[in-house]
This record gives sequence, C-alpha cells and structure tokens, in this order.
Amino acid sequence: MTEVLDLAKRLIAAESVTPATGSVFDELQAMLEPLGFEVTRFTRGDGEEGSPEAPVENLFAIRRGPEESKHFSFAGHLDVVPPGGGWASGAFEPEVRGELLYGRGAVDMKGAIACMVEAVKDVPAEAGTISFIITGDEEGPALHGTRALIDFMRAEGHQPDLCLVGEPTSVNRLGDMMKIGRRGSVNIWLEVEGTQGHVAYPHLAENPIPKLVAMLAELDALVLDEGTDWFQPSNLEITDLEVGNMAHNVIPAKAEARISIRFNDLHSGASLSEKVGAIAEKHGGIAKPIISGEPFLTPPGEFSDIIARAVKDATGVDPEPSTTGGTSDARFLRSVCPVIEFGLVNATMHKRDEAVAIEDLSTLSRIYTAIAKDALA
Amino acid sequence: MTEVLDLAKRLIAAESVTPATGSVFDELQAMLEPLGFEVTRFTRGDGEEGSPEAPVENLFAIRRGPEESKHFSFAGHLDVVPPGGGWASGAFEPEVRGELLYGRGAVDMKGAIACMVEAVKDVPAEAGTISFIITGDEEGPALHGTRALIDFMRAEGHQPDLCLVGEPTSVNRLGDMMKIGRRGSVNIWLEVEGTQGHVAYPHLAENPIPKLVAMLAELDALVLDEGTDWFQPSNLEITDLEVGNMAHNVIPAKAEARISIRFNDLHSGASLSEKVGAIAEKHGGIAKPIISGEPFLTPPGEFSDIIARAVKDATGVDPEPSTTGGTSDARFLRSVCPVIEFGLVNATMHKRDEAVAIEDLSTLSRIYTAIAKDALA
Ligand SMILES: [Zn+2]
Ligand SMILES: [Zn+2]
Repeated sequence: MTEVLDLAKRLIAAESVTPATGSVFDELQAMLEPLGFEVTRFTRGDGEEGSPEAPVENLFAIRRGPEESKHFSFAGHLDVVPPGGGWASGAFEPEVRGELLYGRGAVDMKGAIACMVEAVKDVPAEAGTISFIITGDEEGPALHGTRALIDFMRAEGHQPDLCLVGEPTSVNRLGDMMKIGRRGSVNIWLEVEGTQGHVAYPHLAENPIPKLVAMLAELDALVLDEGTDWFQPSNLEITDLEVGNMAHNVIPAKAEARISIRFNDLHSGASLSEKVGAIAEKHGGIAKPIISGEPFLTPPGEFSDIIARAVKDATGVDPEPSTTGGTSDARFLRSVCPVIEFGLVNATMHKRDEAVAIEDLSTLSRIYTAIAKDALA
Repeated sequence: MTEVLDLAKRLIAAESVTPATGSVFDELQAMLEPLGFEVTRFTRGDGEEGSPEAPVENLFAIRRGPEESKHFSFAGHLDVVPPGGGWASGAFEPEVRGELLYGRGAVDMKGAIACMVEAVKDVPAEAGTISFIITGDEEGPALHGTRALIDFMRAEGHQPDLCLVGEPTSVNRLGDMMKIGRRGSVNIWLEVEGTQGHVAYPHLAENPIPKLVAMLAELDALVLDEGTDWFQPSNLEITDLEVGNMAHNVIPAKAEARISIRFNDLHSGASLSEKVGAIAEKHGGIAKPIISGEPFLTPPGEFSDIIARAVKDATGVDPEPSTTGGTSDARFLRSVCPVIEFGLVNATMHKRDEAVAIEDLSTLSRIYTAIAKDALA
C-alpha cells in the first residue's frame, strides 16, 4: 500500500494545471522505465500560455510482450483543473489526513495513474504487451492531447486490443460504476438577422426576435429519441440568449442564441447539425455548430465482463455499466479499439480538498492488475 | 416674414440641449412680455447634470382676455436633441441658405414657438385669454416638464379650453397632417429564474430559457386589438433578450427579455401590465412594467375642424387627422383639455442639418393666428 501511495504523492506534488508539460511527465517516466517500459514523450502546440494552442505534453509508454501476444492499454491524463482557493492543505502538497490522501488530482486522475503503474508490477512481461497512453490535455481544449497520441500510435503501428481509461467513474464506493459509453456533445450558435427600427414604426423594421423565439420553441419541443438500451434520451438545452439592446424604443437588428445537445449513438454531430440547421433556416436564421465529441459505446460483453469480474473479486460490488455524464478522451480512443472507463470515486473531483481513500488506491491497483492479466489472456 | 424668422433665429441661437434652462427661456420671456404676457418661470430637479433629476426649466405665460372669455393655449418645448456631428453650419448658429433656415430646433420646435409668438401679435387681447405652456424637458425623461406645468396651472386656476401643441406633425408639406391622438407606450421587463447546472445533468438543473421562450411565443402571438376608427392596432415588440451565459456547458440560472407595447385607447398601461403579468406568471416568470405614457385621443370635431379650416385657408391642403408616431407631451395635456398637435414639416427633425422653409414659418404664423382667433370665438 505504501508504494502506490508514494507514487500518487509524487504525481500530485508535480503541479500540472492543464495544459501539463514537464515535471509530472518526468515523474511518470521515472516510474515506468524501471518496469521495462520504453517511453516516448512529445510536445505539441506553439501558442502562448492560456491560448488553445498552448504547448501540451503527451507520453506513450510500451512494454512489449511475446510475438503475437495481445496488447492492453491504460489511458489517462496528468493535467488537472485549477485548484481554486480554500484548501485545508496545499493542493499540490499531497497530505494524508486520517484515511485519505488530499491533493488536486487525487481521484482525477493522478491517483488512478499511480494505480496503473503499481498494477503492472504484478503483470508478468510474458503475459503480453502493455502500454500507457497519457496526455497533459484532457481538462483543456483536448486539441493536441489524446488525438495526437492516437496519430503517433498509428504511425508507429501500435494497435491495442482493449483500452481502459482511468477516469473516476465510481460514485458512492469504489467499483459501483464503469462507463461503457459517453454521449456526444455539440454546441450550436443560432442567429437571426432583421432590420433595426423604431418600435413606433414596426412596419419599417423587421424584428428578428420573434423568429428566434419560434425557432427556439420548435427546437425545445424536439424529441430527439427515446433513449436506447444503453443510453438515456438525447437532450437539447438552450444555454444562452443574446440581443444586447439597451434602447427601449428600438427594434434590434440581430438576435442570437446558443444550444447544447448531449446525444446518444442514434445521432452524430453532423446529423444533429443538419437537423438544427434546417429548423434555423425555416425560421429565417442560421446555425453554426461546433462538435465537441461524438458518442461512443462499447456494448456490454467480453471487456465489461473482465472488468466486472475483477471488481467483484476485489470489492464484492457489481459495477453498473453506465453511459451518463460528460465527455472524456474515450471519445477519441473508441476509434482505436474497444474502450471502457473505470476508476476511483468521483465525489471530490474538480472540487476543493479533492481526496482519495488510501485503501481505494490499493484496491484499484489490484483490480487493474486483474483486468490487465485477464485482457491479455 | 423677417420678424418670425428673427424670432426663430434668436431661439435657435440660445443653445438648449435637453434638459434646457436659462438663456433660451430669457429669449422667449423677452418676446412675450412686450405682447402683454405675464410670465412665470420655475426650475425643477436638483440632480447632477446628465441624471434624470437634472434641473429643468419651465415657462408659463398668460395674457388674460375679458372676464368670461375663452382660454386658448399654445404648448411646446424649448429643449432640443443633441446636434451630433457633420453639420454644414453650426447647429446653434442659425443660418439661412437659399429658402431654408438651418439650426437645431428649426422644426422641433423652436421654429413653431417663434410662429406662436408671431401669431399672437395678430390676435387682439379682447379676443380672449391666451397662454403659453413651454417646457425645457420634452426630449428627455419628461419628469419635471409639462407635468410640473400642469400642476402649476391647476394650483393657479388656469384652465384652458383648448390646447395646441406645436410638434412638427406635417410630413411632406406644411399642413398635410395633424395629430389628434397618440398611442400609449409601456416597456415591460420579463424575468424567469431557474436553477443553474451542467448540461450533462439537466435533471439537477432547471433551465429558465424554455419558459421564457414559451412566454415570448405567447406574447408575440397576442392580438391586442384590430385597431379603432382613429387608431391602428396596438403593437407589441420584443426588444431584448438577455442571458449572458459564456459557459457552453452550463444551464443558466436566469433569463430575461424586454418588450415594448404601443397601444391605442382600448387599453391602458395598467391593463396591459396586468395582461402581460398574468402570461409571465403562467410561464413561471415575472413582469416589471414601466409605463411611459397613456394614449390620448381628441376625436375629430370642433377643434380639429378649426385647425383644418385654418390650414386649408392658408395652404389649400386638408390636414389628415392622424394618431401615428411616438409619444409627445400631449399625453399629459390631455388631462387638462382637448389637445391636438399641429406644426412644421418633420423630415429633418432630430437629424443633421435640421431646417425649416422660411416660407413655412410665415404661413404657420398665419395659421396659428387663425386657429387662436377661431378657438376663442
Ligand atoms: Zn479526468
Ligand atoms: Zn418635439
């Protein structure tokens, strides 16, 4: 137990607010090389600090098994969200109080990466190929993170058979939930142009707001689907309205809104963009979509069974296969191989005094060992 | 003709961007006293310059006719809107070029006030009582202008029988339109509160935008009336939407909108506020109305006939009795006596290079004389 705790502390102590580069990767590299991993690191992005193009570091590590053996990947991120204020101890000064380890990244997800490192110590090299796909840009724009790692792996011919992402998927206790899928996400900016004028002479103006209101009423009434066996129904939220007209007597020239759709695998970002675009056009407006992520689903089967068995053995809990919540880098990894997310309890993620139960670090290490062995068998 | 032109020039040269005080009133007082008028001036408002409570000057002038004679009032304003840039000559340096007199206020409405002064020279004192109700706060908030003058008149026992407001009502040529009424105006702020949350977990949030959208759709579909013999249909415009949510993944806590209603005499500000308030409440929101003015109507009859005859005699034109356009101080004067607006051509009002035809100043003076004589007869 002390070993995985020490690994987690070392990673937390290496401050790495997104986008991450440098020392936190030095730490992980120093942990993996003695275990027989060949480590490749590369930095992408040449923008200024704070810009979406700010530099991002990525790490790929591989320990090759015998010829023809299977290839299992652990994936995750070393960047963390900003700590915010009010911590009882330093966010980047890992501290044990009682049975918990406190620090930014304790559960999301430096703790899980420490467990992955600890886990592979107990997987013999002969069992098969193991790799680590670790980015410093998951909490940020994710432009030069996992996507760049996938490009690198393709170029180098690294093709995992299964991939486990260590996001904190457990809710009330370690093991109660795994994510077999995630919904996709698209934000769409809506705009209607009219003709400005005075409210006393509406016939000389063309008010864009009623058109936008009718458009939004139609969008709000849309039933995208009823959900699927594995996904809840797709959901559309209107997230912003904007006219910005200070003059009480003026009919404005333009009205804008923004919607956000979380959608299941009955849709794609493109199909929804087209559907919303047609409704916008019908009401005299235009729609500008930005797709944040397509949905993914690894239907329950061999991989989820492997995870469920490992979890049950270690904790006695049957993990619920879920597709709820936000997006993760699994949306990119799905193009490589079947991917499932499983990790620590997420109650404190992104919050002040983020903390992990020390016991859970130990248990998760054993679960990860069992999953890797079973996946390679 | 030179006399009314000189009067107009003197008034224009006394710079008086709203709210007006001082020199422009000195000028008018100096014109009226030699004609037998008793002048009262008072200033209201003790706020800072630029605030709605900034000081405003008002002038009431009366020339009493014989006991039991009728009382006819001219009403208007000496404040002007800011000149803006790009004038060919100084906005407050009245200049004759060709057949036009240029200067801010030439038509709205220092030119008309000059005509009123010129007009009374030809109305014998024995004809009856004539008064001037002149404010320096018509183009601004109108808090301490004509309303204060009406309070003063009531306190002093001045009760006109008819009142003519000299707003520039003519459209294409002098005499083609008089305003026998104006629509009322109310602006209503609408607000729906919800519960902020993340778009991925909509069940934990309560999005206020769909409620606001449904409320606005219902308001936009309202048919307030079909118009009356003298008024066009009342009209509701949605003039603003405001959420101001920059976070794409966040369901906002509040959504706001503003509407502006121009309404005829089938409604009152209060009746519409109540109607809109009920709709807002039905959709989980609230409505905060600010009534800018109630409608007024002086139905065609004796007074409009007097004006029409005078106009026809002087110009050959039949003035159309209209109720279109924005609000004016007639909305206050209606509580005193029947009121109609008639004045110069409004094509250049509130614009750069505001100008009046010198010929029109002369003609309008004769029309005003005829109206006053007839009204007092
Ligand atoms: Zn994470
Ligand atoms: Zn005016």
